[in-house]
Amino acid sequence: MEALGRQILVEFYDCDESKINDVSYIENSLIQATKASKATIISHNFHKFSPYGVSGVVVIAESHVAIHTWPEYNYCAVDIFTCGDTIDPWVIQEHLKGYLESKNVSSMEMKRGMFRMPEGQKLLFKPDQNLQPN
Amino acid sequence: MEALGRQILVEFYDCDESKINDVSYIENSLIQATKASKATIISHNFHKFSPYGVSGVVVIAESHVAIHTWPEYNYCAVDIFTCGDTIDPWVIQEHLKGYLESKNVSSMEMKRGMFRMPEGQKLLFKPDQNLQPN
Repeated sequence: MEALGRQILVEFYDCDESKINDVSYIENSLIQATKASKATIISHNFHKFSPYGVSGVVVIAESHVAIHTWPEYNYCAVDIFTCGDTIDPWVIQEHLKGYLESKNVSSMEMKRGMFRMPEGQKLLFKPDQNLQPN
Repeated sequence: MEALGRQILVEFYDCDESKINDVSYIENSLIQATKASKATIISHNFHKFSPYGVSGVVVIAESHVAIHTWPEYNYCAVDIFTCGDTIDPWVIQEHLKGYLESKNVSSMEMKRGMFRMPEGQKLLFKPDQNLQPN
């Protein structure tokens, strides 16, 4: 079986409360962590909740990175979904661990989009442009 | 142990190829499915890839719904992340199954943000506004 994508679900506990309540800091952290992985950023969109919490998503050509923070519990939920083998999602996780100052991290990697390919065929996360008419 | 959120990871196989390659159709499907759950939509952002595929995220007050489609494999990866007990993420999953015309669905529900609360205290996914100064 081959997989189209990999997804890391990360529980960042014991984070810095004020940093994870700062929407600019969180947005910048996700962008920097994503850039460090060499993923191609398509868009990013972050929101601050009243009185606490930030939610945001960085959409990348290779899927997405999402965060939801609960400063009142020093906790952030992060999803890192990547496709292809040029991007290492664990680079993003490592950078975020530093930015969020998390002292207790629990991560799980899952495979997404499982296919059994016929002999001699490879599962491509994006079409081989050389085989396209344009 | 109590959880701040629930996340459903859904593998939609055997979807309608042309529908899952149509960015407007996918955007509308996610918005309608999210509205059906009574979640509060904050923003939505969708992209079409060349020559195939759509990625998009609906950010909701209760977290997010994300999709990545691979029309060439009739496959969509969907994440439904919700908080609180007023929203049922499975309503979103059921509606999307119909919109995507998926004939083979695999879903897994996970708990996010696990905390052991002291006796008499409840884990709140958003602060009790009555306890806030404003």
